[in-house]
Amino acid sequence: MDILQLSATARSASVRLAAIGTEVKNAALASIAEALSRRSGEIVAANRKDLAEAEKNNLAAPLLKRLAFDEDKIADVCAGIESLIRLDDPVGKTLSATELDEGLELYKVSCPIGVIGVIFESRPDALVQISTLCLKSGNAVLLKGGSEAQRTNAVLAEVITGATKDKLPYGWLQLLETRDDVSAMLGLDEYIDLIIPRGSNEFVRHIMSNTNIAVLGHAEGICHVYVESSADLDMAVKITVDSKCQYAAVCNAAETLLVDQEIAGEFLPKVKAGLEEKGVRLRGCQKTAEIIEVEPATQRDWSTEYLDYVLSVKVVGGIDEAIEHVNRYGSGHTEAIVTAESEKACRFMDLVDSADVFWNCSTRFSDGFRYGLGAEVGISTNKIHARGPVGLEGLVIYKWKLIGSGQVVAEYSGSGGRGFTHRKLDKECRF
Amino acid sequence: MDILQLSATARSASVRLAAIGTEVKNAALASIAEALSRRSGEIVAANRKDLAEAEKNNLAAPLLKRLAFDEDKIADVCAGIESLIRLDDPVGKTLSATELDEGLELYKVSCPIGVIGVIFESRPDALVQISTLCLKSGNAVLLKGGSEAQRTNAVLAEVITGATKDKLPYGWLQLLETRDDVSAMLGLDEYIDLIIPRGSNEFVRHIMSNTNIAVLGHAEGICHVYVESSADLDMAVKITVDSKCQYAAVCNAAETLLVDQEIAGEFLPKVKAGLEEKGVRLRGCQKTAEIIEVEPATQRDWSTEYLDYVLSVKVVGGIDEAIEHVNRYGSGHTEAIVTAESEKACRFMDLVDSADVFWNCSTRFSDGFRYGLGAEVGISTNKIHARGPVGLEGLVIYKWKLIGSGQVVAEYSGSGGRGFTHRKLDKECRF
Repeated sequence: MDILQLSATARSASVRLAAIGTEVKNAALASIAEALSRRSGEIVAANRKDLAEAEKNNLAAPLLKRLAFDEDKIADVCAGIESLIRLDDPVGKTLSATELDEGLELYKVSCPIGVIGVIFESRPDALVQISTLCLKSGNAVLLKGGSEAQRTNAVLAEVITGATKDKLPYGWLQLLETRDDVSAMLGLDEYIDLIIPRGSNEFVRHIMSNTNIAVLGHAEGICHVYVESSADLDMAVKITVDSKCQYAAVCNAAETLLVDQEIAGEFLPKVKAGLEEKGVRLRGCQKTAEIIEVEPATQRDWSTEYLDYVLSVKVVGGIDEAIEHVNRYGSGHTEAIVTAESEKACRFMDLVDSADVFWNCSTRFSDGFRYGLGAEVGISTNKIHARGPVGLEGLVIYKWKLIGSGQVVAEYSGSGGRGFTHRKLDKECRF
Repeated sequence: MDILQLSATARSASVRLAAIGTEVKNAALASIAEALSRRSGEIVAANRKDLAEAEKNNLAAPLLKRLAFDEDKIADVCAGIESLIRLDDPVGKTLSATELDEGLELYKVSCPIGVIGVIFESRPDALVQISTLCLKSGNAVLLKGGSEAQRTNAVLAEVITGATKDKLPYGWLQLLETRDDVSAMLGLDEYIDLIIPRGSNEFVRHIMSNTNIAVLGHAEGICHVYVESSADLDMAVKITVDSKCQYAAVCNAAETLLVDQEIAGEFLPKVKAGLEEKGVRLRGCQKTAEIIEVEPATQRDWSTEYLDYVLSVKVVGGIDEAIEHVNRYGSGHTEAIVTAESEKACRFMDLVDSADVFWNCSTRFSDGFRYGLGAEVGISTNKIHARGPVGLEGLVIYKWKLIGSGQVVAEYSGSGGRGFTHRKLDKECRF
């Protein structure tokens, strides 16, 4: 099948998938977990071939590690599926119920979005996580993985579709093969409702600029830690070090440290010691350089996502300058304030225009698993639909169901017309 | 100011507007209503000039009617503002609260989207409705109205900004002047978070295809009425006539009637009589033409939004053919089924992929005021963020607030790490 046929098939599968009940979806998830365990030999064998080729192509060690998919990782994804089965079905929830008039009831009911196109990086676990999240939320899914994981992904997709073929509409999950498929997908707004790209900044930006389909995700994570003048400085060091170093290569790691001028003299030497112990290089503004030895930061540093053991440091005059800096240079991802004053914390959290705003804890908590959402399909810096870590709830929308008994608008029009009651109902939609 | 400055000013106003409390926003709304009444003379005078010029330019009568803005309409929009004041503030609602661990609490809290760009048709009431909805939801707004209402809109914008200048950040509302401003706006994704276009199909499609900013709205409303075989046929006639004729020129009017073949012989003559009494011309499929006299429908009719006293009619073999037709040719707006069987109604409402799905009532109910949302900024056929009539709730998003006491992710990592409690909390965020 070509990409157009694949997408049209996914679209018609999505319509039927939307009406499938929780029990069937959970049974399909259980079948997937069972099949993954039962066929782990095949999966691991395919992964070994991908790994061998990747080594031959001199793939970097961290990428090889992400590509590896062994029995332990299979057990992990199966445990993930078991948790997903236990999560509430996000579909079919009554979000509001209103009597418009006697015998005319309006319900706002959650439903799947439809067809989701996901483009993901090398980790084959992502294929399983994303497709099972889409299944539980009733969405059909088009998947394109990294070419280095091609064999592993092909087996995984075959295992998943095989395990669900008696329970779910044909074509609910489709694996795309080539980069050309991705380009073609970007034009198929008739069939695809949402694209979730996961990959490098350039790649995500490219996707965002080349499609009229809604895109959920983030191009970059320029996260800040702001140490306010009343902060517990030991806590501030601990939070800064964790935000930068606990996993430097990911989007929720801090890239810029903002330090209140009042405590800069005392705090900067402390934090420098803590960071340098972990091998972090500092690039500082001029005021920073007057207090500790740092490489000079240029204007460009404030908008750079290092994804590495480098941190830019700026001394600010107070909380408003910090907020302004974050809103100007940040990417709307995650920002933390360290302060002892509740009022300052609230001001920062209210005025900073980011998806995740933290008080006295590490930026690294910004994650779907840590948030308790189950797995995540990605982290969104969008300002519509879903923001921050996106789990099941970000994969549904709603429809309005209006249940009448012959009412027409003409009866409610003009000066002699009937009025609306608009009475909130405390009941679930049973239609 | 040029459009770039206007937008940057709106962006910085939006940040401060997000932190303004309900009381201040309601006081600002009250000031607007007061100023509109007090300065009604100026407004009506400006509107008379617009009307005079429009008449000189031979604007069609229905458009002139929409352009007119007299003392009565001013009283209407002021009444609308009073209702808006009484509606709950959609900002600052705790959508979820979770304990991640002792002393580490996560809150999902609703917040404004930021800067909304609205392009609207000739009715000057729209300017007042949209800007007050944006104010109540804490959003800054860039407005571009129809050029025929230029003088009226300029006075209205001046009255609104004048009435709120002591209460709200400078630049929260800005009126764009030219078509070039609109084109420029489409490229300003750094400053504008959402565009809501209201106008002709071609215009809305043009906007959707020419910006990377999220667009909320609908290009067209190809709405269907499906008369199932068990329907009460008198009710079905009444619903069909209302759906088509109660206001034919709007998006929620029906464009296609689908009739089950089992009852077509009895129903079609009845509905023809009812529709022709209102002056509706029918275009039918071949099976329809075998039962009643109609113009022949071509393939193109199924995807045409007439916005006029014309209705296409198709005889279908059963509910599944009806659903397939709607999903293939519809625009995802509003569809009604007339049936006596609950099971059929549920099947239709579940499988039809539209924003608004109705059982035994007219498609014309699809409207923010009738739904009890207060006014609406538009009707969305998007499948992400907001769907159907969009009121206050569609103008907010959320941010995640995480409140800690020094926690870092390193403590929760590895085999000896702390676990998360992920306990749902039944409390409001007070930060």
